[in-house]
Amino acid sequence: MVPEIAHSVRLTDDADAVLVLDRRRLPFERVWVRCGTVDEVAEAIKDMVTQSSGPYFAALSAMVLAAREASGLSPEHARAHLERAGRLLVRTRRTNNHLRKAVHAVLSTSDTSVDGVLAAARAGEELYRARSRALASAAAELLPDGARVLTHCWADIYLIELVTALERAGKRFSFVCTETRPYLQGARLTAPTLVEMGVDTTLITDGMGAAVLADGRVDALVTAADRVTMDGHVVNKVGTLGLAASARAFGVPFHALVQAPDQDAASADAVPIEYRDPADVLSALGRPVPGVRGLYPAFDVTPPNLVTTVVTDRGAFAPADVHEYYREGEQNQ
Amino acid sequence: MVPEIAHSVRLTDDADAVLVLDRRRLPFERVWVRCGTVDEVAEAIKDMVTQSSGPYFAALSAMVLAAREASGLSPEHARAHLERAGRLLVRTRRTNNHLRKAVHAVLSTSDTSVDGVLAAARAGEELYRARSRALASAAAELLPDGARVLTHCWADIYLIELVTALERAGKRFSFVCTETRPYLQGARLTAPTLVEMGVDTTLITDGMGAAVLADGRVDALVTAADRVTMDGHVVNKVGTLGLAASARAFGVPFHALVQAPDQDAASADAVPIEYRDPADVLSALGRPVPGVRGLYPAFDVTPPNLVTTVVTDRGAFAPADVHEYYREGEQNQ
Repeated sequence: MVPEIAHSVRLTDDADAVLVLDRRRLPFERVWVRCGTVDEVAEAIKDMVTQSSGPYFAALSAMVLAAREASGLSPEHARAHLERAGRLLVRTRRTNNHLRKAVHAVLSTSDTSVDGVLAAARAGEELYRARSRALASAAAELLPDGARVLTHCWADIYLIELVTALERAGKRFSFVCTETRPYLQGARLTAPTLVEMGVDTTLITDGMGAAVLADGRVDALVTAADRVTMDGHVVNKVGTLGLAASARAFGVPFHALVQAPDQDAASADAVPIEYRDPADVLSALGRPVPGVRGLYPAFDVTPPNLVTTVVTDRGAFAPADVHEYYREGEQNQ
Repeated sequence: MVPEIAHSVRLTDDADAVLVLDRRRLPFERVWVRCGTVDEVAEAIKDMVTQSSGPYFAALSAMVLAAREASGLSPEHARAHLERAGRLLVRTRRTNNHLRKAVHAVLSTSDTSVDGVLAAARAGEELYRARSRALASAAAELLPDGARVLTHCWADIYLIELVTALERAGKRFSFVCTETRPYLQGARLTAPTLVEMGVDTTLITDGMGAAVLADGRVDALVTAADRVTMDGHVVNKVGTLGLAASARAFGVPFHALVQAPDQDAASADAVPIEYRDPADVLSALGRPVPGVRGLYPAFDVTPPNLVTTVVTDRGAFAPADVHEYYREGEQNQ
């Protein structure tokens, strides 16, 4: 079955507002935040109402709102208004390329009417889902029947499509999820979504990943990647690196899922690592201990020698070969 | 300075009760639980009022209470009473050998009078502290001046003695501690104790260890070991293994601290891994998500190839050589 979070950003039927499922309230409450303007969508993205693939879909829909706002204007002014809206949206988060891609998908259409932008936004969404389905099918092929899969953080549409692809392939499977401190995406999003989809799901703390990798309890480590560099480094939620090192130490394959490697990142030094508020780390006891400093790198970088496969919408690549994803002269996908 | 937790189990001046610092209330409250009988000490150990080295000291003191209870009895009956008390104490936790050693230290004396047992208990405590000092001195020698040390969970007296030994050696140092979910010993005990001792202390979540090991932010991984097998496997709090695998992947040494390897454990299969209540893992969001299963292995086993040094009270050994700790015919220390 399709979990509710698979369609967590929705344009109203009249295309006059964007409804965003508030992920901060999951899994115990289902609250939809209504955003009537581009500004409100941008605020919702900044405030983490939605995250992971959510901002991509939210930005597409926000551009439809921008087109409505510009509907009385000349084509040149309408385009300028759309471009301003796009810049505002892209600035909200800098973690990965989703927002840039969403805005680009809309701005690359010449038709700035509401209908034109709506069509472009819908095409952008369909393309994202189709590419996620493609990479999930390729990932499902790498997993054996009966696969016990360890995952970290929240792979979002990739995970939902992977479960769907495994079912389509008639394979049995189960998942072990890390809770993913400090934001607990694994406990908050991954485990409940898997259960909603009827999957056998076990939750562990982040420190227990190596133990289940070592004792033969899982057959593969599978995570999304926020970015994969052209030389095969995998940038993903902090914690991925330790699991990858443990998987390597105990001979368990690590498959990283990404639609395409990033031509703007030749190697890891081209990817700035976001540091978030250390207070999030210090809050585990309810309040910080005076004198203790916190450190919160949001992502880590797994080098290619600790990655088995990078799975893209064009199939699986050894990390050293990901540059072969692109055809001669082709631009970032 | 000596932190309060260094002496967290105290016999009253009249030797009529054992005061146990309630570690469950740390770091924000300092509450001492008064135990007037052996039964009450056993309950306090079971209820996790104290843990790590705490049960060792608590068991020594409890045997003094047992000697008081037996003070009107004949020597044979008094010894039988002490032996019953010892069995009760040993049964409270099965994790490591501390309780057995504490009870043995007292029962090996022939004098079952209160004064005799008190002397044996004091000698047992002094021996434990002296051995901890010895291994800490050896560990301090392995660390460079300016060492940035990553530690996991709570190494208790070993950690306090390591800080003291580093200061005595005139070395500068700082610590990074993992929070150590689900019980948060790192956030609750390690970080506050280090701050109390004036040490520069940074807290991270368990998933961030690999990131700090990979980016050159730490010079060594140092943890206690609950047990070290005769072939160099290190059994310690779950999470140690993933850090050890990451340390190995990035060329950072891992030093495991233990007074002595365990002759009763030829290899890892001789050490049963304790599984605790999965509810502790599922509680991160305040309440469990229906349908999600939890798994809580309390310890993991780091194989010798992922350990750099086992540091004992007789100095540092390569993990493959820990059996050389014992002299010909010598019994478990």
